[in-house]
Amino acid sequence: MKTQPKTTLWGSAFTQMPSGAVLSFTAGRDTADIPMADTALLPYDVWVNTAHVVMLAKTKCIPVGSATKLLSGLAALEKLVDAGKFPLDPLKEDVHTNVEAWLTESLGSAVAGKLHTARSRNDQIVCDMRLFMRDGTITVIENTLVLVKTLLAKAEKTKGIVMPGFTHHQHAMVTTLGHVLSGFAAMLLRDVERFEAWYERYNHSPLGNMASYGTSYPIDKKMTAECLGFDGPDYHSIDAITNRWEAEADLAFAVTVLMNHLSTVSETLVLLSMTEFGTVTIHETYSTGSSVMPQKKNPDVLEVVKGKAALVSGQLMSLVALGKGSFIGYNRDSQWAKYIIMDVLRECSAAPVLVSGVIGTMTVNERAMASWCHTGGIGATVLMEQLAQTSGLPLRQAKTVVEQAIKECGNLGTVTHSSLIGAMKDQSLTSVPPAAEQVMAWQDPHTMVGLMKSLGSPGKKSMKTVLKKLTRTLHRDITWLGTQKQHLHEAKARLNDMKTALMKGGE
Amino acid sequence: MKTQPKTTLWGSAFTQMPSGAVLSFTAGRDTADIPMADTALLPYDVWVNTAHVVMLAKTKCIPVGSATKLLSGLAALEKLVDAGKFPLDPLKEDVHTNVEAWLTESLGSAVAGKLHTARSRNDQIVCDMRLFMRDGTITVIENTLVLVKTLLAKAEKTKGIVMPGFTHHQHAMVTTLGHVLSGFAAMLLRDVERFEAWYERYNHSPLGNMASYGTSYPIDKKMTAECLGFDGPDYHSIDAITNRWEAEADLAFAVTVLMNHLSTVSETLVLLSMTEFGTVTIHETYSTGSSVMPQKKNPDVLEVVKGKAALVSGQLMSLVALGKGSFIGYNRDSQWAKYIIMDVLRECSAAPVLVSGVIGTMTVNERAMASWCHTGGIGATVLMEQLAQTSGLPLRQAKTVVEQAIKECGNLGTVTHSSLIGAMKDQSLTSVPPAAEQVMAWQDPHTMVGLMKSLGSPGKKSMKTVLKKLTRTLHRDITWLGTQKQHLHEAKARLNDMKTALMKGGE
Amino acid sequence: MKTQPKTTLWGSAFTQMPSGAVLSFTAGRDTADIPMADTALLPYDVWVNTAHVVMLAKTKCIPVGSATKLLSGLAALEKLVDAGKFPLDPLKEDVHTNVEAWLTESLGSAVAGKLHTARSRNDQIVCDMRLFMRDGTITVIENTLVLVKTLLAKAEKTKGIVMPGFTHHQHAMVTTLGHVLSGFAAMLLRDVERFEAWYERYNHSPLGNMASYGTSYPIDKKMTAECLGFDGPDYHSIDAITNRWEAEADLAFAVTVLMNHLSTVSETLVLLSMTEFGTVTIHETYSTGSSVMPQKKNPDVLEVVKGKAALVSGQLMSLVALGKGSFIGYNRDSQWAKYIIMDVLRECSAAPVLVSGVIGTMTVNERAMASWCHTGGIGATVLMEQLAQTSGLPLRQAKTVVEQAIKECGNLGTVTHSSLIGAMKDQSLTSVPPAAEQVMAWQDPHTMVGLMKSLGSPGKKSMKTVLKKLTRTLHRDITWLGTQKQHLHEAKARLNDMKTALMKGGE
Amino acid sequence: MKTQPKTTLWGSAFTQMPSGAVLSFTAGRDTADIPMADTALLPYDVWVNTAHVVMLAKTKCIPVGSATKLLSGLAALEKLVDAGKFPLDPLKEDVHTNVEAWLTESLGSAVAGKLHTARSRNDQIVCDMRLFMRDGTITVIENTLVLVKTLLAKAEKTKGIVMPGFTHHQHAMVTTLGHVLSGFAAMLLRDVERFEAWYERYNHSPLGNMASYGTSYPIDKKMTAECLGFDGPDYHSIDAITNRWEAEADLAFAVTVLMNHLSTVSETLVLLSMTEFGTVTIHETYSTGSSVMPQKKNPDVLEVVKGKAALVSGQLMSLVALGKGSFIGYNRDSQWAKYIIMDVLRECSAAPVLVSGVIGTMTVNERAMASWCHTGGIGATVLMEQLAQTSGLPLRQAKTVVEQAIKECGNLGTVTHSSLIGAMKDQSLTSVPPAAEQVMAWQDPHTMVGLMKSLGSPGKKSMKTVLKKLTRTLHRDITWLGTQKQHLHEAKARLNDMKTALMKGGE
Repeated sequence: MKTQPKTTLWGSAFTQMPSGAVLSFTAGRDTADIPMADTALLPYDVWVNTAHVVMLAKTKCIPVGSATKLLSGLAALEKLVDAGKFPLDPLKEDVHTNVEAWLTESLGSAVAGKLHTARSRNDQIVCDMRLFMRDGTITVIENTLVLVKTLLAKAEKTKGIVMPGFTHHQHAMVTTLGHVLSGFAAMLLRDVERFEAWYERYNHSPLGNMASYGTSYPIDKKMTAECLGFDGPDYHSIDAITNRWEAEADLAFAVTVLMNHLSTVSETLVLLSMTEFGTVTIHETYSTGSSVMPQKKNPDVLEVVKGKAALVSGQLMSLVALGKGSFIGYNRDSQWAKYIIMDVLRECSAAPVLVSGVIGTMTVNERAMASWCHTGGIGATVLMEQLAQTSGLPLRQAKTVVEQAIKECGNLGTVTHSSLIGAMKDQSLTSVPPAAEQVMAWQDPHTMVGLMKSLGSPGKKSMKTVLKKLTRTLHRDITWLGTQKQHLHEAKARLNDMKTALMKGGE
Repeated sequence: MKTQPKTTLWGSAFTQMPSGAVLSFTAGRDTADIPMADTALLPYDVWVNTAHVVMLAKTKCIPVGSATKLLSGLAALEKLVDAGKFPLDPLKEDVHTNVEAWLTESLGSAVAGKLHTARSRNDQIVCDMRLFMRDGTITVIENTLVLVKTLLAKAEKTKGIVMPGFTHHQHAMVTTLGHVLSGFAAMLLRDVERFEAWYERYNHSPLGNMASYGTSYPIDKKMTAECLGFDGPDYHSIDAITNRWEAEADLAFAVTVLMNHLSTVSETLVLLSMTEFGTVTIHETYSTGSSVMPQKKNPDVLEVVKGKAALVSGQLMSLVALGKGSFIGYNRDSQWAKYIIMDVLRECSAAPVLVSGVIGTMTVNERAMASWCHTGGIGATVLMEQLAQTSGLPLRQAKTVVEQAIKECGNLGTVTHSSLIGAMKDQSLTSVPPAAEQVMAWQDPHTMVGLMKSLGSPGKKSMKTVLKKLTRTLHRDITWLGTQKQHLHEAKARLNDMKTALMKGGE
Repeated sequence: MKTQPKTTLWGSAFTQMPSGAVLSFTAGRDTADIPMADTALLPYDVWVNTAHVVMLAKTKCIPVGSATKLLSGLAALEKLVDAGKFPLDPLKEDVHTNVEAWLTESLGSAVAGKLHTARSRNDQIVCDMRLFMRDGTITVIENTLVLVKTLLAKAEKTKGIVMPGFTHHQHAMVTTLGHVLSGFAAMLLRDVERFEAWYERYNHSPLGNMASYGTSYPIDKKMTAECLGFDGPDYHSIDAITNRWEAEADLAFAVTVLMNHLSTVSETLVLLSMTEFGTVTIHETYSTGSSVMPQKKNPDVLEVVKGKAALVSGQLMSLVALGKGSFIGYNRDSQWAKYIIMDVLRECSAAPVLVSGVIGTMTVNERAMASWCHTGGIGATVLMEQLAQTSGLPLRQAKTVVEQAIKECGNLGTVTHSSLIGAMKDQSLTSVPPAAEQVMAWQDPHTMVGLMKSLGSPGKKSMKTVLKKLTRTLHRDITWLGTQKQHLHEAKARLNDMKTALMKGGE
Repeated sequence: MKTQPKTTLWGSAFTQMPSGAVLSFTAGRDTADIPMADTALLPYDVWVNTAHVVMLAKTKCIPVGSATKLLSGLAALEKLVDAGKFPLDPLKEDVHTNVEAWLTESLGSAVAGKLHTARSRNDQIVCDMRLFMRDGTITVIENTLVLVKTLLAKAEKTKGIVMPGFTHHQHAMVTTLGHVLSGFAAMLLRDVERFEAWYERYNHSPLGNMASYGTSYPIDKKMTAECLGFDGPDYHSIDAITNRWEAEADLAFAVTVLMNHLSTVSETLVLLSMTEFGTVTIHETYSTGSSVMPQKKNPDVLEVVKGKAALVSGQLMSLVALGKGSFIGYNRDSQWAKYIIMDVLRECSAAPVLVSGVIGTMTVNERAMASWCHTGGIGATVLMEQLAQTSGLPLRQAKTVVEQAIKECGNLGTVTHSSLIGAMKDQSLTSVPPAAEQVMAWQDPHTMVGLMKSLGSPGKKSMKTVLKKLTRTLHRDITWLGTQKQHLHEAKARLNDMKTALMKGGE
């Protein structure tokens, strides 16, 4: 076999190469451009313009005749946008002015000059960004629910696989892989709740606030709000424009918490997959190799998730800093909020899906996991609890007994019967000591898990309740998402109807 | 008259000195200790202990006899705590171990040794902190509502006082003081909403999660949750302990946004009260003097609010950083979350009340405010809108006309009739130009406000709607708060009943 | 005259439009792409490759014959890069692997396969980034010195223009515009010092550290260090790679402080140019207009500087967060350090030059400035000092006297003779009171500045010393910069000589 | 034996309990007050007052007679302060006014009223804080050098102990413990350099800048600078007061980087001491137990170091946020800079000493470390390099060969001779393959380290150079520190001489 030129300088130790999504997620911006910000806003700007023009006509702020021409122009423009054939011209400043300039060229200034009636770029951009962030939030929720689904499915399958539970990075008590994975799901469902709260807090229309202080045109804010799928208009012209960092910061905070949760998932899997643990193997399709070390299969996806958790925390900080000490009304400082939140969503949106891929494809070494459950004195707590429960010893005294036994056993990893007897004698305890087999049984990993009784623990009954509860929440979230999407769909249809009616009437 | 030693080295130019609350808010930690953190947790720890013991008895995890003794001991301890007579001993580590040590001394280890059954300090401290933060959140909401009330009352009174509205720190359009103040209220009511969401998101009990992996005792998490006023238990033993930064960060974020809003209020008032503006005078009781400059009356309260906005943004950052890349289970790194959120609440809780004081006592120079409304070309936008509305000119063309007129008028501050006519001629406009008096009228501040029509604007009808809507929200929040307090009150009473019944039965 | 389509939707009130640099600085990323990160590294990567190959040949790690072929290939590649004709292919991962792949295609794998001898992408990228940041630092220093020069020139011209000095945003004491501007220069020269310290701290070569743990090839780190213009190699293979966030964070911190300083310059100028102040006019070429308000000339450049100060503070935070809790050796989390510092430099490098433009072109209303110097009790402090100096009164008592006089004068803005006499009587002072003209003279702005004696004050002698000192520092920095550039030039020349010699010998 | 009440509720499994310093470092503020901020400033305030009074007398700003009385008063006050008998009274505001009030009571207002001549609290507090931070910096440097010394000593002893080197948390190449520890020393010495740069950048006196705009008294800033151990006065009255966050942020940044480095040390040791690694045991005196799990010995000190790294990163952020967008002159926002930097130093100063304790007392399981050096394919890179060096294969091809061999060996951990031969055949290589013993030898940990040749690597010659270089830097830093301390000592002596001379002359 002849060596072929490969596109990467590693990979001969791999049986399968990582997917394009993985390479793109991990390669970052090395060989990828970030396109101009306003391109992403084009579809939203057209939507906002359409709703605005319909409203201007309905409220007689502009003549119906001008409105229908503007609407035809916007429809033509939308087709160009959909086809990717509307490049923005930097000489024409931004998305709003590019749109107006194009309409001016198409329709003449007598018509196009009416587009900007009763509005400013200040309320327009805040409105565009609300729509952009709203869609971004929907995507993040969808992606997170993908991961939750994977976690719950895998948890169901692995709720019987014992593994060490840790505190302080030290062996604490035995748990199961299913318990750990469902714990991740629990965190992530709270994230989803936070994104939903964001959606409901900010799904109000700022359109019509003009420069910050309203307008003397008799506009109808409620109508545009409805046409854009908002739950209604906002109620103060100064608020949203002065705080053109708050919805962004609020969303960035939700992403930050999500990424912190994912960083915990990542750190945990990175450690469990270290050679010294030997308990988890990250699939090759979610690993990359080294330019120089032949043996390397690195968990890059998980590392990049951690790196992006660091990234987004600073982006949150920038947004918060933008908002401090602002004077009332728009200040241009806050324009940077736009790029920052775009970066946040671009960098992080896909993270849950990639982590879902890692978890769905990783292999678990059950034997190694079980074997670690006999080390590090990990059975001591259940031993202590059972000793207390069966002997009637106060918990505190049972603990002292087991501590002394542990001390005597040194590095054995488990407590021997003789050391326990010795410790009980040392404490002049008169209660009948447990039998040798009992002492061993209480430290057996599967027995220990079987003994766990508290809600939320890895015990059998608890896990049944937990998985049921989390699955119910997952489904509630899926339903919520469907409802919102349907609502947006209807808003668009309604606007379309109004537009059509107007154009018919206008002809 | 002989000079008396004063307690401050300034103040002879004052007729009234600032209150103790103001001096303490502004003096910060110069001459104030911060007491040990766990003192603040004592009442919560006793509550949690009581609920825990009652539950242990009811579930037969410990004998009723031991439980009643423990409850008596805790009741005695509570009296000491209430009387401020339970100093914590650093040699006994923390609040939890101080409590257990005191009970051991009082009741002997045979009884007290049963207290720590089926729990760890890990779940205990998370539970204590939830209660602490819950009360802190209630306080912040209460204080913010005080400020909102002040703002709405003052807005009602000042909705007719014209003043310049700004964008980019430049004169934008005329607005009213009442409009600006109600804008502040709108922001702050969203803050309240965010605190309420926090409350509902985290009012779940982590007690019973033990070290992070549950317990083999047959405890009842729902019972303790109910006794502590939670809406229920949480559903995973790993979640809250691993994320012992999240509720803290979430709360710190809400405080950060609140403080950013207050910093905007502060910055706005600081500028309006500058000599160059001469529009607002901060009352002496919310000002301090200088050690060396005789004339100084500084708006320290407002400046400190801005300083604390900076402070809390970093505290949020610390909390977020604590949570990145954690391995599952408790890690001691996160202990610092406790001090940070305590600092956040201690530094910021009172801020809304102090700002309320500033606003409630400040005096407004209406004449100066009105006079600035004739400068900086501030009437140009309404002039343009009216020109367009009356002449049928496209807005964009009307704008060009007014821009040219502005250019010709130079620094006059308003647009003259002749310059407008000139500009219209330059653009070869055939429409009949407005009369001279009309041009002046459209730039009259009160007329302009009267012309404002959009919802959320300073116009009369809008302001009526806005104030009504904001007042309704205020009342909804007051009701919400009352409901929560009632709920907590009932939970305490219920626990007390259970305790009494147990002790009666136990005798 | 017919209205022409303009490229912006504002500007008819302007006599001169802002420059392209201004529009690009303020328009941000609205209509500008960010190109792929590694394109910027291409020239550095070629340099590093060249130095590496020369060293490999000199140390006999690879045969001279292979080396000369590689060097020819790199020279050909460099030409493509210089001509902008070497687009990076995402399928070939990053800049390093694109370069190797191109060489493999050109020279065959038998030769190109030797390029990556004794190195890893880990040390290579750290080395590329050091070179990139080194050049970035040089640019920032150059740009900051441009601003310092402008400030010192303008300070020299305006050291006699009186204006209010502020503390707490309130009138404090009279100062001069020259004093304020030279104060800005003083801050910025400390920034330059910080950048120079960065340069000297990190101008050490990490090349040869391989993956993090060195190599078994007999490489010569000192040689490559010298060829790349470093002051020497670093001394530990683990250090720079594990800390692939530190040089970035250190540089971002220096930029953050610089931007904070510029934000103070900006905030000060924004306030001074408000209508209410009327003291400074920002030139139209550094302003932009509004899409809807005809009169607006907004100080966008200054606002954007403040916005970018917020931005960079968060970027610093991201970098710091990346570095927390890393395990030894390279971790991919830190890759994001690269994009962040690139963003920092791209966003902020030009800021000092733009602020220099604002300051160089702004106009000052001397009359307005002087007129504010009679308000707000601004003369009280010098009055007090002079009263104490001439009468022998303790300063503290003189202060009380003036405080009482101020109180009596109310809103007059200055202290009257009669109120001063009254206050002295009240205090039963027997010293001869100053004459009426004296009291007025002591509150005359120019007289007050004339009286200032302390080093660093706006007084004449002080200002002479201050400007001389700051100018000397400026020249020292210019010299430092020249030295470094010369050093880099020589390093490149030396490498070229070695390359040439090798190629001659190799033929 | 009867159970005795212990002060902690764990420890029976320990043979030795942690020290008070460890318990206090890890217990944080649980049971420790933070004293009022200004108490820490008292000694500095007295020093500054003394220097100021001496200067006022020498420059004839106040009569020598008053000055000598003030100096006597200050001397008496200093004794109270030294004896801890000068409690600050909150009613008297802050440290400065408490001092003046006490002098007024002691000496009468005719004398004490002259103390505040030609200064403001603005320059006074900046000056006090410079002295406070200067001492804090000295302490941090001292403590860091303690750790560096420990690291270098331990590195010398362990430079022959092989262990896995990691990248991406995966086995990369074999290294030695001494190499890793000396890597930590290298990072920390750069921290020391950064603290020294801080010292030199800010050791300039702001005293005499008054409120921000100087004074009309003929003071001598150079004299007070010299008396306070500064390298000279600063040169602009506005600078340091407006930027009353910069020296603080600069210091906090240096601490942040230090803590990040210590967090890497901590994370590394926490992982190496996990049960799964079994390579390092943290000494009991640097561990703590659990309230409920009998077996726990947790590496709390190291975890707390990581937690504090998170803490300080946010504190840095607060300081940076304080400085953004400030208007010229003092603004009270910046007062919080004082508490923040005090917190930074209080929380973090001792960290290096505690980490030094951990490293000085930990035990290393050499056998376990060596044993891991045969797993994870860790020998592949040296094998590849040696194969390339001996066979003349291009590195890239040698890599492909070893990659294929690795793939064939699966989970064996090392590359077998047969798989290597197979891979060479697959690639149709004609070069003579290495002998079986050679292949094994190249993967032997000690042999691999012996082969390392690059400067900075764990190879023998490299380590000798590295340790020598780092030790030299350590000694340079120790000398630097001694010089500064001597300089401060001399400044105090000189001031004392001036004071004595004045008092003699004044009598």
